[in-house]
Amino acid sequence: MSKISTKINFGNFFEDFEIGQKIVHPLPRTISDGDVSFYIALTGSRFSLNSSDILAQEMGYTKKPLDDLLMFHLTFGKSVQDISLNAIANLGYAEVSFPNPVFVGDTVRLETEIIGLKENSNGKSGVVYVHSIGYNQDENEVLNLKRWVMVHKRNKGEMSGINIVPTFAKTQAIKEEINIPVLKDINTDVTGGNYFFEDYEAGERLNHAEGITIDDSDHTLATKLYQNNAKVHFDDFMMKSTPMGQRLMYGGHVISIARSISFNGLQNAQWIYSINSGAHANPTYAGDTIYAYTEVVETIEHKREDLGLLRLRTVALKNHRPETFDTTFDENGKYKKEVVLDLDYTVVIPKKQK
Amino acid sequence: MSKISTKINFGNFFEDFEIGQKIVHPLPRTISDGDVSFYIALTGSRFSLNSSDILAQEMGYTKKPLDDLLMFHLTFGKSVQDISLNAIANLGYAEVSFPNPVFVGDTVRLETEIIGLKENSNGKSGVVYVHSIGYNQDENEVLNLKRWVMVHKRNKGEMSGINIVPTFAKTQAIKEEINIPVLKDINTDVTGGNYFFEDYEAGERLNHAEGITIDDSDHTLATKLYQNNAKVHFDDFMMKSTPMGQRLMYGGHVISIARSISFNGLQNAQWIYSINSGAHANPTYAGDTIYAYTEVVETIEHKREDLGLLRLRTVALKNHRPETFDTTFDENGKYKKEVVLDLDYTVVIPKKQK
Amino acid sequence: MSKISTKINFGNFFEDFEIGQKIVHPLPRTISDGDVSFYIALTGSRFSLNSSDILAQEMGYTKKPLDDLLMFHLTFGKSVQDISLNAIANLGYAEVSFPNPVFVGDTVRLETEIIGLKENSNGKSGVVYVHSIGYNQDENEVLNLKRWVMVHKRNKGEMSGINIVPTFAKTQAIKEEINIPVLKDINTDVTGGNYFFEDYEAGERLNHAEGITIDDSDHTLATKLYQNNAKVHFDDFMMKSTPMGQRLMYGGHVISIARSISFNGLQNAQWIYSINSGAHANPTYAGDTIYAYTEVVETIEHKREDLGLLRLRTVALKNHRPETFDTTFDENGKYKKEVVLDLDYTVVIPKKQK
Repeated sequence: MSKISTKINFGNFFEDFEIGQKIVHPLPRTISDGDVSFYIALTGSRFSLNSSDILAQEMGYTKKPLDDLLMFHLTFGKSVQDISLNAIANLGYAEVSFPNPVFVGDTVRLETEIIGLKENSNGKSGVVYVHSIGYNQDENEVLNLKRWVMVHKRNKGEMSGINIVPTFAKTQAIKEEINIPVLKDINTDVTGGNYFFEDYEAGERLNHAEGITIDDSDHTLATKLYQNNAKVHFDDFMMKSTPMGQRLMYGGHVISIARSISFNGLQNAQWIYSINSGAHANPTYAGDTIYAYTEVVETIEHKREDLGLLRLRTVALKNHRPETFDTTFDENGKYKKEVVLDLDYTVVIPKKQK
Repeated sequence: MSKISTKINFGNFFEDFEIGQKIVHPLPRTISDGDVSFYIALTGSRFSLNSSDILAQEMGYTKKPLDDLLMFHLTFGKSVQDISLNAIANLGYAEVSFPNPVFVGDTVRLETEIIGLKENSNGKSGVVYVHSIGYNQDENEVLNLKRWVMVHKRNKGEMSGINIVPTFAKTQAIKEEINIPVLKDINTDVTGGNYFFEDYEAGERLNHAEGITIDDSDHTLATKLYQNNAKVHFDDFMMKSTPMGQRLMYGGHVISIARSISFNGLQNAQWIYSINSGAHANPTYAGDTIYAYTEVVETIEHKREDLGLLRLRTVALKNHRPETFDTTFDENGKYKKEVVLDLDYTVVIPKKQK
Repeated sequence: MSKISTKINFGNFFEDFEIGQKIVHPLPRTISDGDVSFYIALTGSRFSLNSSDILAQEMGYTKKPLDDLLMFHLTFGKSVQDISLNAIANLGYAEVSFPNPVFVGDTVRLETEIIGLKENSNGKSGVVYVHSIGYNQDENEVLNLKRWVMVHKRNKGEMSGINIVPTFAKTQAIKEEINIPVLKDINTDVTGGNYFFEDYEAGERLNHAEGITIDDSDHTLATKLYQNNAKVHFDDFMMKSTPMGQRLMYGGHVISIARSISFNGLQNAQWIYSINSGAHANPTYAGDTIYAYTEVVETIEHKREDLGLLRLRTVALKNHRPETFDTTFDENGKYKKEVVLDLDYTVVIPKKQK
């Protein structure tokens, strides 16, 4: 007797996108202290700037700013239902920057423009390239990112032949103005780290000491908190009938865990300037223990005398300590099975106080 | 040597209740942003009114109101220790309404009157019918509900023969005044839904797309957050010696998960007007994946021109997608084993903007 | 090619400590409503003073103070990376007091002085005795505690022969001034408890009714929330190669669960005055169900007429109900395997209203 409704949103397919199309993602989010506590509980993050209003005020903020990655997840999560609900794979991201700090009480939202479309020769899918910008309630940019995802086609046979592929900067260019207060009198008794910009050198490798095991409730709580509704993360019944056999962890959670682990050795690098590129080399599942090491790729001077930047490569491993892990690739140039994240990003770190 | 204390509260038994008795439940709760973040993380709820202060202000609120069900759980949870600690089963509820919105910072509490008592013929138990009212710090009603539970008798042999059974409205009557600001200029780019009152028709069935798997930590965190101390939800050691063999999920959590899943298709139905009746048809355990479908039972016009009401029936299933599920009952008129919730409720939804 | 960095903090070893050494622990923490919600969700705590601003104001506070144990965990957690990262065992604590209340918005930090060092005769380890003081942003003491931990030596062979052992008070002395507002008109309909100071007697034993099962996500979320980075709690991969075979639960979480369970029978004992001593008699792992009983050791009059103190001994058991459990020790004077906590502490409780 009942009539099946057509009001259900099954997400967009490859054919639903066109170059130049703009999408306003629904569900702006007012960020709260509850979100901040959750982020600490889910990741164990210990960066002091995001934990103490007193320290933040000493550094020139009115109060503690949000961890950049928490803001990323809360803002980015809104694009899933429009962009990647029918994604086969998240292929990559580039030029991810964090132009302005975000604070508890701010309301963030996201808009996206389609900047590239490449149909796959198999006729079954295609790659969608997007440029997304996150705004706070005052229309200030708080997130700027590009990413590309492989998406199912609705009609597997019909070929359009579209092949418009944008190019991306290998690393985010460093601007003359960096939106961080003047850094002086950094109290290492408070931040927990004794090392500053001048102490790091290209080629240095930090084998971070801690490992964190992630359980199903952790990663699903995280992803639901971000209102990211990608089914692969939540629906164990569905996933049991796939080759994975279980829920796949949200890659963003792995990034956050790796960043949290990187605290030990990079305590004063409290700002992510950009994410230049990243690969989720292998899937992560509940029960996996994440370890990480970080290579200093480049030390970058800035015209500001109080700070410099470090381009870093943080590699997250599952169930393997970094001390006994050499290179990320096997003899065939493929990621070894232990590698779950290979992240190229740039952080800001104070210079030594004179 | 030690003397066993008699100060432990083992809860009330059937004989401890009498018609007209009033109970002030202890433990009022000041609701915080932490509770709101928890609710989103535990359920994945995406209703925009409860997520964004900006949207809430555009809709005429001072700030985002609490999700009706979160308020329900935080208020209702207080009655467990007085009413249902010795419950054999929660048999039903009726006439559940949400007279006033609740906001972060409000302090809610609950009072209950006993309105019915029916001794079971086996002499071992009886049914207790209660009318509970929740109040905020200004003594405004925020929750009004009736429910009935089967409770153990203290003295299994002694019969009182009491048999006073109240009657309940099949559906909550719709009042002339609805405590919601005038709804105009609904921004569907923000709410995520394009459908309004006029778009729905009786008999329409929405097979919601998402499924959510619930783990032990999820449902026990939820129930502890609500300070609901019913042992069956927390004590795995005890439950291992019962036919269930494990912790039983709080039925209210299943309602919240079903409501969260119903977002996809009902994005603009952001207010629960009433819960008319509900059945927890089968138990839910950790590891179950919840799916849901919703039938539009009735479309209800209101004298207000900006909104209407939809009487809905949301059925939650475990480990079975709704597309391939027909009717809830088997040939003997009993709930099929996949059905975990059969909820009859009424929501408010804006009309199309003229 | 890469150079292994020496910037990783592997924690202090026995030789790194010296008598009189002072350590300022990094990572002060601004406490939020999110932390409070987490504490309730993780423990099921129902003490009303920490849940309701209205009640707290009726009792003379400006708003609800933090649960003493939540403040303890958030403050204490900061000392792990400096004191106990290389601990073999947390041997004990004494003279733990809570001099001033803490509120949401306060920022807490911790400092420690080394007050004792005792090298073990095996040459492999030693015991470090510390005195730690927690402060809020106004430099008021909020926590004062002593503890001793067995720590690995860096150089196993070299003996120093150091043997300086402080003495500790068996119970914390009760001060003339107790930093609690005058307690009058306690509303037992709100606190949920009908019993006051005069109702308790030494030798009384309360077999608490509830049991709570703890899962991996619960205890690891708790410990990460506290930014306590002791590896044994998080790293399942590492723990699998130890005799424990799995992650060890943070002992502080067990204390909190036991305190939460003790609510039933001690509802009005809302303030912990001191922790006199405590033993984590056996390890607790995920899946264990915690029960507890409390013995009233001593009833302590105070010059204030509105309150008294109870010295309590709360024993937490795993997978064993307290009614059927007699004594904590076996015939050899060792803790029985069911005992996971033996806590000697003192609480403040109002006297009966005249």
